[in-house]
Amino acid sequence: MAPWAERLAGVRGVLLDISGVLYDSGAGGGTAIAGSVEAVARLKGSRLKVRFCTNESQKSRAELVGQLRRLGFDISEREVTAPAPAACQILKERGLRPYLLIHDGVRSEFDQIDTSNPNCVVIADAGESFSYQNMNNAFQVLMELENPVLISLGKGRYYKETSGLMLDVGPYMKALEYACGIKAEVVGKPSPEFFKSALQAIGVEAHQAQ
Amino acid sequence: MAPWAERLAGVRGVLLDISGVLYDSGAGGGTAIAGSVEAVARLKGSRLKVRFCTNESQKSRAELVGQLRRLGFDISEREVTAPAPAACQILKERGLRPYLLIHDGVRSEFDQIDTSNPNCVVIADAGESFSYQNMNNAFQVLMELENPVLISLGKGRYYKETSGLMLDVGPYMKALEYACGIKAEVVGKPSPEFFKSALQAIGVEAHQAQ
Repeated sequence: MAPWAERLAGVRGVLLDISGVLYDSGAGGGTAIAGSVEAVARLKGSRLKVRFCTNESQKSRAELVGQLRRLGFDISEREVTAPAPAACQILKERGLRPYLLIHDGVRSEFDQIDTSNPNCVVIADAGESFSYQNMNNAFQVLMELENPVLISLGKGRYYKETSGLMLDVGPYMKALEYACGIKAEVVGKPSPEFFKSALQAIGVEAHQAQ
Repeated sequence: MAPWAERLAGVRGVLLDISGVLYDSGAGGGTAIAGSVEAVARLKGSRLKVRFCTNESQKSRAELVGQLRRLGFDISEREVTAPAPAACQILKERGLRPYLLIHDGVRSEFDQIDTSNPNCVVIADAGESFSYQNMNNAFQVLMELENPVLISLGKGRYYKETSGLMLDVGPYMKALEYACGIKAEVVGKPSPEFFKSALQAIGVEAHQAQ
Protein backbone atom coordinates (compact mmCIF):
# COMPACT_ATOMS: atom_id res chain seq x y z
CA MET A 1 0.00 0.00 0.00
CA ALA A 2 1.39 3.43 -0.91
CA PRO A 3 2.18 5.67 2.12
CA TRP A 4 -0.70 8.05 1.39
CA ALA A 5 -3.18 5.19 1.00
CA GLU A 6 -1.97 3.68 4.28
CA ARG A 7 -2.41 7.03 5.98
CA LEU A 8 -5.95 7.27 4.64
CA ALA A 9 -6.85 3.71 5.67
CA GLY A 10 -8.89 4.71 8.77
CA VAL A 11 -10.15 7.97 7.35
CA ARG A 12 -13.87 8.38 6.73
CA GLY A 13 -14.20 12.12 6.36
CA VAL A 14 -12.33 15.22 5.21
CA LEU A 15 -12.68 18.81 6.39
CA LEU A 16 -11.65 21.33 3.77
CA ASP A 17 -10.74 24.94 4.40
CA ILE A 18 -11.92 27.39 1.73
CA SER A 19 -10.05 30.72 1.65
CA GLY A 20 -6.38 30.21 0.79
CA VAL A 21 -6.98 26.50 0.13
CA LEU A 22 -9.71 26.34 -2.51
CA TYR A 23 -9.42 29.95 -3.68
CA ASP A 24 -7.74 33.27 -3.04
CA SER A 25 -10.31 35.95 -2.35
CA GLY A 26 -9.97 39.31 -4.05
CA ALA A 27 -11.55 41.77 -6.42
CA GLY A 28 -14.06 40.29 -8.87
CA GLY A 29 -14.73 37.16 -6.79
CA GLY A 30 -11.16 35.93 -6.39
CA THR A 31 -9.46 33.06 -8.21
CA ALA A 32 -9.55 29.29 -7.78
CA ILE A 33 -6.24 27.78 -6.65
CA ALA A 34 -4.84 25.50 -9.34
CA GLY A 35 -6.15 21.94 -9.06
CA SER A 36 -8.61 22.65 -6.27
CA VAL A 37 -11.82 22.41 -8.32
CA GLU A 38 -10.72 18.96 -9.54
CA ALA A 39 -9.57 17.89 -6.03
CA VAL A 40 -12.98 18.70 -4.54
CA ALA A 41 -14.71 16.82 -7.35
CA ARG A 42 -12.51 13.73 -6.80
CA LEU A 43 -13.06 13.80 -3.02
CA LYS A 44 -16.82 14.09 -3.46
CA GLY A 45 -16.74 11.21 -5.96
CA SER A 46 -14.85 9.02 -3.45
CA ARG A 47 -16.10 7.05 -0.42
CA LEU A 48 -15.07 9.96 1.86
CA LYS A 49 -17.47 12.36 3.49
CA VAL A 50 -16.59 15.98 2.79
CA ARG A 51 -17.38 19.13 4.73
CA PHE A 52 -16.19 22.67 4.14
CA CYS A 53 -15.02 24.32 7.35
CA THR A 54 -14.20 27.99 6.98
CA ASN A 55 -13.49 31.04 9.10
CA GLU A 56 -14.88 33.22 6.30
CA SER A 57 -16.85 35.93 8.01
CA GLN A 58 -17.01 38.75 5.48
CA LYS A 59 -19.74 36.96 3.54
CA SER A 60 -22.88 35.00 4.30
CA ARG A 61 -22.74 31.30 3.44
CA ALA A 62 -25.14 31.98 0.55
CA GLU A 63 -22.82 34.55 -0.96
CA LEU A 64 -19.70 32.46 -0.39
CA VAL A 65 -21.22 29.37 -1.99
CA GLY A 66 -22.49 31.40 -4.95
CA GLN A 67 -19.00 32.73 -5.52
CA LEU A 68 -17.38 29.29 -5.29
CA ARG A 69 -19.93 27.78 -7.67
CA ARG A 70 -19.13 30.48 -10.20
CA LEU A 71 -15.47 29.44 -9.92
CA GLY A 72 -16.51 25.87 -10.77
CA PHE A 73 -16.71 24.21 -7.34
CA ASP A 74 -19.39 21.63 -6.57
CA ILE A 75 -20.55 22.98 -3.20
CA SER A 76 -23.83 23.79 -1.49
CA GLU A 77 -24.70 25.99 1.47
CA ARG A 78 -25.62 23.07 3.71
CA GLU A 79 -22.12 21.61 3.35
CA VAL A 80 -20.47 24.65 4.96
CA THR A 81 -19.58 25.17 8.64
CA ALA A 82 -18.92 28.87 9.29
CA PRO A 83 -18.48 31.05 12.41
CA ALA A 84 -21.44 33.42 11.96
CA PRO A 85 -24.19 30.80 12.32
CA ALA A 86 -22.25 29.17 15.18
CA ALA A 87 -22.10 32.56 16.92
CA CYS A 88 -25.83 33.11 16.41
CA GLN A 89 -26.55 29.86 18.21
CA ILE A 90 -24.40 30.97 21.18
CA LEU A 91 -26.07 34.40 21.27
CA LYS A 92 -29.53 32.84 21.36
CA GLU A 93 -28.59 30.23 24.00
CA ARG A 94 -27.14 32.87 26.33
CA GLY A 95 -29.62 35.70 25.71
CA LEU A 96 -26.88 37.95 24.34
CA ARG A 97 -27.65 41.06 22.28
CA PRO A 98 -24.55 41.98 20.32
CA TYR A 99 -23.02 45.19 19.07
CA LEU A 100 -21.94 43.85 15.67
CA LEU A 101 -18.51 44.95 14.46
CA ILE A 102 -18.76 42.99 11.22
CA HIS A 103 -18.61 43.32 7.45
CA ASP A 104 -21.88 44.30 5.79
CA GLY A 105 -21.61 41.18 3.63
CA VAL A 106 -22.22 38.87 6.61
CA ARG A 107 -24.92 40.96 8.30
CA SER A 108 -27.76 38.88 6.86
CA GLU A 109 -26.59 35.89 8.95
CA PHE A 110 -27.58 37.91 12.05
CA ASP A 111 -31.07 38.87 10.78
CA GLN A 112 -32.81 36.93 13.57
CA ILE A 113 -30.64 38.40 16.36
CA ASP A 114 -31.80 41.18 18.69
CA THR A 115 -29.16 43.94 18.64
CA SER A 116 -31.00 46.50 20.77
CA ASN A 117 -29.35 47.71 24.00
CA PRO A 118 -26.22 45.55 23.46
CA ASN A 119 -24.82 43.39 26.27
CA CYS A 120 -21.89 41.96 24.30
CA VAL A 121 -19.72 42.59 21.23
CA VAL A 122 -19.32 40.30 18.24
CA ILE A 123 -16.25 41.06 16.14
CA ALA A 124 -15.47 39.54 12.76
CA ASP A 125 -13.25 40.22 9.77
CA ALA A 126 -14.85 43.62 9.14
CA GLY A 127 -12.35 45.00 6.61
CA GLU A 128 -12.95 48.68 5.96
CA SER A 129 -15.58 48.70 8.73
CA PHE A 130 -12.70 48.50 11.24
CA SER A 131 -12.83 52.29 11.48
CA TYR A 132 -11.72 54.10 14.63
CA GLN A 133 -15.32 55.11 15.24
CA ASN A 134 -16.64 51.53 15.06
CA MET A 135 -13.79 50.17 17.20
CA ASN A 136 -14.44 52.88 19.77
CA ASN A 137 -18.17 52.09 19.79
CA ALA A 138 -17.37 48.42 20.50
CA PHE A 139 -14.89 49.45 23.19
CA GLN A 140 -17.42 51.73 24.90
CA VAL A 141 -20.09 48.99 24.88
CA LEU A 142 -17.64 46.60 26.56
CA MET A 143 -16.48 49.15 29.15
CA GLU A 144 -20.05 49.80 30.26
CA LEU A 145 -20.76 46.12 30.98
CA GLU A 146 -20.23 44.56 34.38
CA ASN A 147 -19.15 41.30 32.73
CA PRO A 148 -17.87 42.25 29.27
CA VAL A 149 -18.34 39.50 26.68
CA LEU A 150 -16.36 39.72 23.45
CA ILE A 151 -17.03 37.04 20.85
CA SER A 152 -14.54 36.87 17.97
CA LEU A 153 -15.29 35.00 14.74
CA GLY A 154 -11.85 33.41 14.38
CA LYS A 155 -8.56 34.94 15.47
CA GLY A 156 -6.58 34.91 12.23
CA ARG A 157 -3.65 37.32 11.95
CA TYR A 158 -3.98 38.06 8.24
CA TYR A 159 -5.00 36.55 4.95
CA LYS A 160 -3.93 36.83 1.38
CA GLU A 161 -5.94 38.63 -1.24
CA THR A 162 -4.94 38.91 -4.86
CA SER A 163 -3.92 42.51 -4.00
CA GLY A 164 -1.71 41.52 -1.05
CA LEU A 165 -1.81 40.63 2.66
CA MET A 166 -4.80 41.92 4.61
CA LEU A 167 -5.32 42.24 8.37
CA ASP A 168 -7.78 39.67 9.68
CA VAL A 169 -9.97 39.84 12.79
CA GLY A 170 -7.29 38.61 15.23
CA PRO A 171 -5.34 41.88 15.53
CA TYR A 172 -8.56 43.79 16.24
CA MET A 173 -9.64 41.16 18.77
CA LYS A 174 -6.28 41.65 20.53
CA ALA A 175 -6.78 45.42 20.44
CA LEU A 176 -10.11 45.19 22.29
CA GLU A 177 -8.75 42.55 24.70
CA TYR A 178 -5.91 44.88 25.66
CA ALA A 179 -8.08 48.01 25.82
CA CYS A 180 -10.62 46.38 28.16
CA GLY A 181 -8.36 43.92 30.01
CA ILE A 182 -10.50 40.96 28.92
CA LYS A 183 -10.17 37.71 26.98
CA ALA A 184 -12.29 37.07 23.89
CA GLU A 185 -14.24 33.88 23.23
CA VAL A 186 -13.22 32.60 19.81
CA VAL A 187 -15.91 31.03 17.62
CA GLY A 188 -14.42 29.32 14.58
CA LYS A 189 -11.07 27.70 13.98
CA PRO A 190 -8.94 26.82 15.95
CA SER A 191 -11.66 26.25 18.56
CA PRO A 192 -12.12 22.46 19.09
CA GLU A 193 -15.91 22.93 19.45
CA PHE A 194 -16.03 24.38 15.97
CA PHE A 195 -14.21 21.43 14.39
CA LYS A 196 -16.43 19.05 16.37
CA SER A 197 -19.60 20.68 15.06
CA ALA A 198 -18.28 20.34 11.50
CA LEU A 199 -17.53 16.64 12.06
CA GLN A 200 -20.92 16.05 13.70
CA ALA A 201 -22.58 17.39 10.58
CA ILE A 202 -21.07 14.54 8.54
CA GLY A 203 -21.27 11.93 11.33
CA VAL A 204 -17.51 11.40 11.55
CA GLU A 205 -15.36 11.06 14.69
CA ALA A 206 -12.23 13.18 15.10
CA HIS A 207 -9.88 10.17 14.71
CA GLN A 208 -11.57 9.29 11.41
CA ALA A 209 -11.03 12.72 9.89
CA GLN A 210 -8.34 14.44 7.89
CA MET B 1 7.04 68.41 60.31
CA ALA B 2 3.74 67.50 58.65
CA PRO B 3 3.78 64.09 56.84
CA TRP B 4 3.62 65.69 53.38
CA ALA B 5 6.46 68.10 54.18
CA GLU B 6 8.55 65.20 55.50
CA ARG B 7 7.89 63.28 52.32
CA LEU B 8 8.98 66.24 50.21
CA ALA B 9 12.13 66.85 52.30
CA GLY B 10 14.53 65.28 49.76
CA VAL B 11 12.56 66.27 46.69
CA ARG B 12 14.12 68.74 44.24
CA GLY B 13 11.96 68.27 41.17
CA VAL B 14 8.44 67.35 40.07
CA LEU B 15 7.30 65.70 36.83
CA LEU B 16 3.73 66.58 35.94
CA ASP B 17 1.52 64.66 33.53
CA ILE B 18 -0.75 66.81 31.37
CA SER B 19 -3.77 65.00 29.88
CA GLY B 20 -6.12 63.77 32.59
CA VAL B 21 -4.04 65.55 35.27
CA LEU B 22 -3.94 69.21 34.23
CA TYR B 23 -6.82 69.06 31.78
CA ASP B 24 -9.31 66.77 30.06
CA SER B 25 -8.93 66.98 26.30
CA GLY B 26 -12.04 67.31 24.17
CA ALA B 27 -13.91 69.46 21.68
CA GLY B 28 -13.05 73.16 21.79
CA GLY B 29 -9.68 72.69 23.49
CA GLY B 30 -10.80 70.68 26.51
CA THR B 31 -11.24 71.88 30.08
CA ALA B 32 -8.78 72.52 32.92
CA ILE B 33 -9.18 70.17 35.88
CA ALA B 34 -10.28 72.09 38.97
CA GLY B 35 -7.33 73.50 40.94
CA SER B 36 -4.68 72.47 38.43
CA VAL B 37 -3.89 75.95 37.07
CA GLU B 38 -3.27 77.16 40.64
CA ALA B 39 -1.29 74.03 41.55
CA VAL B 40 1.10 74.56 38.63
CA ALA B 41 1.52 78.22 39.57
CA ARG B 42 2.34 77.32 43.20
CA LEU B 43 4.83 74.63 42.16
CA LYS B 44 6.59 77.00 39.78
CA GLY B 45 6.70 79.66 42.50
CA SER B 46 8.32 77.18 44.92
CA ARG B 47 11.94 75.99 45.18
CA LEU B 48 11.04 72.89 43.14
CA LYS B 49 12.03 72.31 39.53
CA VAL B 50 9.05 71.47 37.36
CA ARG B 51 8.84 69.58 34.08
CA PHE B 52 5.80 68.49 32.11
CA CYS B 53 6.08 64.89 30.95
CA THR B 54 3.30 63.79 28.63
CA ASN B 55 2.40 60.95 26.29
CA GLU B 56 0.32 63.38 24.23
CA SER B 57 0.95 62.48 20.63
CA GLN B 58 -2.04 63.87 18.77
CA LYS B 59 -0.59 67.37 18.89
CA SER B 60 2.79 69.02 18.43
CA ARG B 61 4.30 70.55 21.57
CA ALA B 62 3.60 74.02 20.11
CA GLU B 63 -0.10 73.25 19.73
CA LEU B 64 -0.38 71.58 23.13
CA VAL B 65 1.30 74.48 24.92
CA GLY B 66 -0.86 77.01 23.08
CA GLN B 67 -3.97 75.17 24.22
CA LEU B 68 -2.80 74.95 27.84
CA ARG B 69 -1.86 78.64 27.92
CA ARG B 70 -5.37 79.50 26.70
CA LEU B 71 -6.72 77.49 29.66
CA GLY B 72 -4.59 79.65 31.98
CA PHE B 73 -1.53 77.47 32.57
CA ASP B 74 1.93 79.01 32.87
CA ILE B 75 3.81 76.64 30.55
CA SER B 76 6.26 76.94 27.65
CA GLU B 77 7.26 74.52 24.90
CA ARG B 78 10.78 74.00 26.26
CA GLU B 79 9.35 72.70 29.56
CA VAL B 80 7.63 69.74 27.87
CA THR B 81 8.99 66.22 27.36
CA ALA B 82 6.87 64.40 24.73
CA PRO B 83 7.24 61.16 22.76
CA ALA B 84 7.35 62.57 19.21
CA PRO B 85 10.65 64.49 19.59
CA ALA B 86 12.11 61.54 21.52
CA ALA B 87 11.14 59.24 18.66
CA CYS B 88 12.69 61.61 16.09
CA GLN B 89 15.99 61.38 17.92
CA ILE B 90 15.88 57.56 17.82
CA LEU B 91 14.97 57.57 14.11
CA LYS B 92 17.92 59.82 13.29
CA GLU B 93 20.38 57.86 15.44
CA ARG B 94 19.42 54.55 13.83
CA GLY B 95 18.90 55.73 10.25
CA LEU B 96 15.26 54.71 10.31
CA ARG B 97 12.74 56.00 7.76
CA PRO B 98 9.27 55.58 9.21
CA TYR B 99 5.85 54.91 7.80
CA LEU B 100 3.96 57.32 10.08
CA LEU B 101 0.64 56.09 11.45
CA ILE B 102 -0.02 59.28 13.39
CA HIS B 103 -2.53 62.07 13.87
CA ASP B 104 -2.17 64.98 11.45
CA GLY B 105 -1.85 67.32 14.44
CA VAL B 106 1.57 65.88 15.38
CA ARG B 107 2.96 65.51 11.86
CA SER B 108 4.93 68.78 12.06
CA GLU B 109 7.16 67.22 14.75
CA PHE B 110 8.42 64.83 12.03
CA ASP B 111 9.16 67.55 9.43
CA GLN B 112 12.90 66.80 9.46
CA ILE B 113 12.47 63.02 9.11
CA ASP B 114 12.95 61.14 5.83
CA THR B 115 9.85 59.02 5.24
CA SER B 116 10.72 57.72 1.76
CA ASN B 117 10.97 53.95 1.24
CA PRO B 118 10.07 53.15 4.87
CA ASN B 119 12.13 50.68 6.92
CA CYS B 120 10.08 50.94 10.12
CA VAL B 121 6.65 52.00 11.42
CA VAL B 122 5.95 54.71 13.99
CA ILE B 123 2.51 54.45 15.55
CA ALA B 124 0.92 57.06 17.80
CA ASP B 125 -2.51 58.01 19.08
CA ALA B 126 -3.88 58.55 15.56
CA GLY B 127 -7.59 58.82 16.40
CA GLU B 128 -9.71 58.75 13.24
CA SER B 129 -6.55 58.04 11.21
CA PHE B 130 -6.63 54.49 12.62
CA SER B 131 -8.55 53.44 9.53
CA TYR B 132 -8.34 49.88 8.21
CA GLN B 133 -6.47 51.18 5.19
CA ASN B 134 -3.80 52.94 7.26
CA MET B 135 -3.43 49.99 9.65
CA ASN B 136 -3.07 47.65 6.68
CA ASN B 137 -0.44 49.93 5.10
CA ALA B 138 1.58 49.83 8.34
CA PHE B 139 1.15 46.06 8.52
CA GLN B 140 2.33 45.58 4.94
CA VAL B 141 5.42 47.75 5.52
CA LEU B 142 6.34 45.64 8.57
CA MET B 143 5.74 42.32 6.80
CA GLU B 144 8.11 43.28 3.99
CA LEU B 145 11.01 44.02 6.35
CA GLU B 146 13.58 41.42 7.30
CA ASN B 147 13.82 42.92 10.81
CA PRO B 148 10.52 44.70 11.39
CA VAL B 149 10.81 47.69 13.74
CA LEU B 150 7.63 49.07 15.28
CA ILE B 151 8.00 52.16 17.47
CA SER B 152 4.96 53.09 19.55
CA LEU B 153 4.54 56.52 21.14
CA GLY B 154 3.22 55.27 24.49
CA LYS B 155 1.09 52.18 25.02
CA GLY B 156 -1.95 53.63 26.79
CA ARG B 157 -5.17 51.61 26.66
CA TYR B 158 -7.58 54.54 26.52
CA TYR B 159 -8.06 58.09 27.68
CA LYS B 160 -10.95 60.24 28.72
CA GLU B 161 -12.32 63.00 26.56
CA THR B 162 -15.18 65.23 27.55
CA SER B 163 -17.31 63.09 25.17
CA GLY B 164 -16.30 59.75 26.76
CA LEU B 165 -13.58 57.09 26.75
CA MET B 166 -11.41 56.91 23.62
CA LEU B 167 -9.08 54.15 22.41
CA ASP B 168 -5.44 55.14 22.76
CA VAL B 169 -2.43 53.87 20.79
CA GLY B 170 -1.84 50.75 22.93
CA PRO B 171 -4.64 48.60 21.45
CA TYR B 172 -3.42 49.38 17.91
CA MET B 173 0.16 48.64 18.92
CA LYS B 174 -1.03 45.25 20.21
CA ALA B 175 -2.90 44.66 16.96
CA LEU B 176 0.26 45.14 14.86
CA GLU B 177 2.36 43.12 17.32
CA TYR B 178 -0.03 40.19 16.99
CA ALA B 179 -0.43 40.52 13.22
CA CYS B 180 3.34 40.50 12.61
CA GLY B 181 4.49 38.37 15.56
CA ILE B 182 6.76 41.15 16.83
CA LYS B 183 7.25 43.31 19.93
CA ALA B 184 7.01 47.10 19.71
CA GLU B 185 9.56 49.51 21.17
CA VAL B 186 7.67 51.95 23.38
CA VAL B 187 8.83 55.57 23.40
CA GLY B 188 7.13 57.57 26.14
CA LYS B 189 5.75 56.56 29.51
CA PRO B 190 6.17 54.05 31.11
CA SER B 191 9.61 53.65 29.51
CA PRO B 192 12.34 54.43 32.11
CA GLU B 193 14.48 56.14 29.41
CA PHE B 194 11.67 58.61 28.81
CA PHE B 195 11.38 59.58 32.48
CA LYS B 196 15.18 59.84 32.69
CA SER B 197 15.32 62.25 29.76
CA ALA B 198 12.66 64.42 31.43
CA LEU B 199 14.66 64.49 34.67
CA GLN B 200 17.92 65.22 32.82
CA ALA B 201 16.27 68.28 31.32
CA ILE B 202 15.84 69.77 34.83
CA GLY B 203 19.07 68.32 36.27
CA VAL B 204 17.33 66.19 38.87
CA GLU B 205 18.13 62.58 39.90
CA ALA B 206 15.37 59.98 40.02
CA HIS B 207 15.50 59.72 43.84
CA GLN B 208 15.03 63.50 44.09
CA ALA B 209 11.88 63.55 41.99
CA GLN B 210 8.17 63.20 42.60
